Amino acid sequence: MMMLTGKGVFCVRDWSWIRKGGYMEGDAGRGLGCQKITAGKGNNRNGSSKGSIPSCCLKAGASDPELDAKCHSTVVSGWFSQPRSCSDKSGNTAYFNNPMWPGEAHSLKVEKVLYKEKSLYQEILVFESSAYGKVLVLDGIVQLTEKDECAYQEMITHLPLCSIKSPKNVLVVGGGDGGVLREIARHSSVELIDICEIDQMVIDVSKKFFPELVVGFEDPRVHLHVGDAIDFMRCAPKGKYDAIIVDSSDPVGPAQELVERPFFETIARALRPGGVLCNMAESMWLHTHLIQDMLSICRGIFRGAVHYAWASVPTYPSGVIGFVICSTDGPPVDFKNPINPIEKVDGALNHRRELRFYNSEVNFSHVDLSLILLATISQNHLIPGSEKDFPKLCYVPLLL
Amino acid sequence: MMMLTGKGVFCVRDWSWIRKGGYMEGDAGRGLGCQKITAGKGNNRNGSSKGSIPSCCLKAGASDPELDAKCHSTVVSGWFSQPRSCSDKSGNTAYFNNPMWPGEAHSLKVEKVLYKEKSLYQEILVFESSAYGKVLVLDGIVQLTEKDECAYQEMITHLPLCSIKSPKNVLVVGGGDGGVLREIARHSSVELIDICEIDQMVIDVSKKFFPELVVGFEDPRVHLHVGDAIDFMRCAPKGKYDAIIVDSSDPVGPAQELVERPFFETIARALRPGGVLCNMAESMWLHTHLIQDMLSICRGIFRGAVHYAWASVPTYPSGVIGFVICSTDGPPVDFKNPINPIEKVDGALNHRRELRFYNSEVNFSHVDLSLILLATISQNHLIPGSEKDFPKLCYVPLLL
Repeated sequence: MMMLTGKGVFCVRDWSWIRKGGYMEGDAGRGLGCQKITAGKGNNRNGSSKGSIPSCCLKAGASDPELDAKCHSTVVSGWFSQPRSCSDKSGNTAYFNNPMWPGEAHSLKVEKVLYKEKSLYQEILVFESSAYGKVLVLDGIVQLTEKDECAYQEMITHLPLCSIKSPKNVLVVGGGDGGVLREIARHSSVELIDICEIDQMVIDVSKKFFPELVVGFEDPRVHLHVGDAIDFMRCAPKGKYDAIIVDSSDPVGPAQELVERPFFETIARALRPGGVLCNMAESMWLHTHLIQDMLSICRGIFRGAVHYAWASVPTYPSGVIGFVICSTDGPPVDFKNPINPIEKVDGALNHRRELRFYNSEVNFSHVDLSLILLATISQNHLIPGSEKDFPKLCYVPLLL
Repeated sequence: MMMLTGKGVFCVRDWSWIRKGGYMEGDAGRGLGCQKITAGKGNNRNGSSKGSIPSCCLKAGASDPELDAKCHSTVVSGWFSQPRSCSDKSGNTAYFNNPMWPGEAHSLKVEKVLYKEKSLYQEILVFESSAYGKVLVLDGIVQLTEKDECAYQEMITHLPLCSIKSPKNVLVVGGGDGGVLREIARHSSVELIDICEIDQMVIDVSKKFFPELVVGFEDPRVHLHVGDAIDFMRCAPKGKYDAIIVDSSDPVGPAQELVERPFFETIARALRPGGVLCNMAESMWLHTHLIQDMLSICRGIFRGAVHYAWASVPTYPSGVIGFVICSTDGPPVDFKNPINPIEKVDGALNHRRELRFYNSEVNFSHVDLSLILLATISQNHLIPGSEKDFPKLCYVPLLL
């Protein structure tokens, strides 16, 4: 779920192999560079043989390679920590900082480790937590918990699908756990649900441990494509989709506009006029530059509406997750006031299970039209008695 | 900031000495009971000599007295953890769970410990964090950070003050850091700001380390009363205040309605007809029963409106903090649509400093009128393959 980039750091063009994986932002990531490695055994395109993968992408949690090399478990003393704590050879617990979430850590008490394996692309961990039910972790980063996944899955799905009349063709990029599929399936108007997930093992593990999510794959409208999403979209007929939901990492960094732009252009091409995109877009408290850049780029590509929305998700950094929502040129889209309210979609409220977070009032409340809270470093904001500036928070105009 | 109670556990009638202190909720707290101790040297009424204080209140972070006894610092390996990790005699790092936040922990990297001292009532810690600026910690619980305090202070203040015309007399219960005073001072209509804070040292420490908050004390309308807030309110003329803001712990537990009720009745008595209360009310993700009980009790006492509001605050458990907002019988109050919008209050937007989180749109978006997201344990919600129920989240009607 964690999408992070660093200025001057770009890792991989073919990014979709990192489902919700990690890039770096902030000082912690700046010095890492992006050494190509070939130790993997997968393929970042089709799963048969692995191309060169930058080390910074393989281990989002590893800002200190030496410590990381000594870290054999993400679970220490019965706790899973994000960023991880690990024991060195002397038995002492050492801490290192996750470049995607510098200076803070969130830990969950582990009742039982249920699964731990390396896929072709990433390390997959499933454990039973004492407070959040089962937890899915990829490369040391919490992807979802049973307790709070509803907020993320429902928001990233219904924000776009309720903003257009009778969505028919929908594409999910990433989303191998099935949660977004489960939510799309509430929409009776939908005829086709394409999903492009690079890592088959994420799907298999979800089938074993997360039945309430993976139920989404059982819908007969779902067509699974295991592979690279950019290739898939490029091969799709222009204007095929009414909605595209990117439930995946985004490799596009603040300084990587050239790289970002083609990705969003590919999405825009695959959408019909007045079609909509919902793209995971990190925390407004932590990833200011990233959000600003994404919004700026999207405003240049999507000629309809471009807004930012968010949801409260306790197990994501800072407790919130954001979304960039965009529409292509065509019939106007009002993201704040759904034209296709979920309450009026036949059978939607209780399809498979009840809605737990999203409703039209929540939709209205969680879409910012004109302002967005962003942490910014003010150069002129030196606090008396403090040795340095600290982040200053304020609402800034969305029209960046 | 953390207000927690446990079923069957009630600690102290005279609660105001615990500013944002901790009570217990959930299994971790249930076995603790509430042994009276007299080791303190303060007085929970007037600060001159200490009455009996239950041990569970003294150390919100200490669910394991043995471990706690061995724990001499909240900072281990350069990190502050909430709940704390600490080293035992063997040098190994041990973890214990905070009863107020069972099963999870949030850690902040410490740049420098600036202050650590025991007041008459609690342990006060101030440190410079690497990600959130300076941090104020009381009895092991984060009270505020420079980065995100704006969200809490602005919301708890302007939600009530913007809901009534020309507020004149305002009372703050707790709030010794001065942040709420800073926000009240934006309202030019206000003539009197009483603040009742039990712990003088909190004020003194804030004056030294948090100039952006404690600036609130400089306003000539502020009258400081160091002492017990309940006594203070009982001595106040009936109907004196237009608004009361409780920036403090609330000792009222789910099973303690008899104790809760008099507190809220005291507040209601001190408010004028159509006066408003804003009371910190924990996280909708974590403290379901507490919120439900508070709302239920308030509905019985406040005959105007009773609603729940919330804000995103990354350094509080689950990343959100809630507020119960109530009005007494009298002129109707619309908490969602401020009658006294901050944008129209003369000079409010930039008094002392700019507003960073609150505006009328945020107000509208963060007050729930009919539904509230609450984590509930469904007895019939056994997940296939899971050995136990897990918390189920759904919106439930606010009319409890």
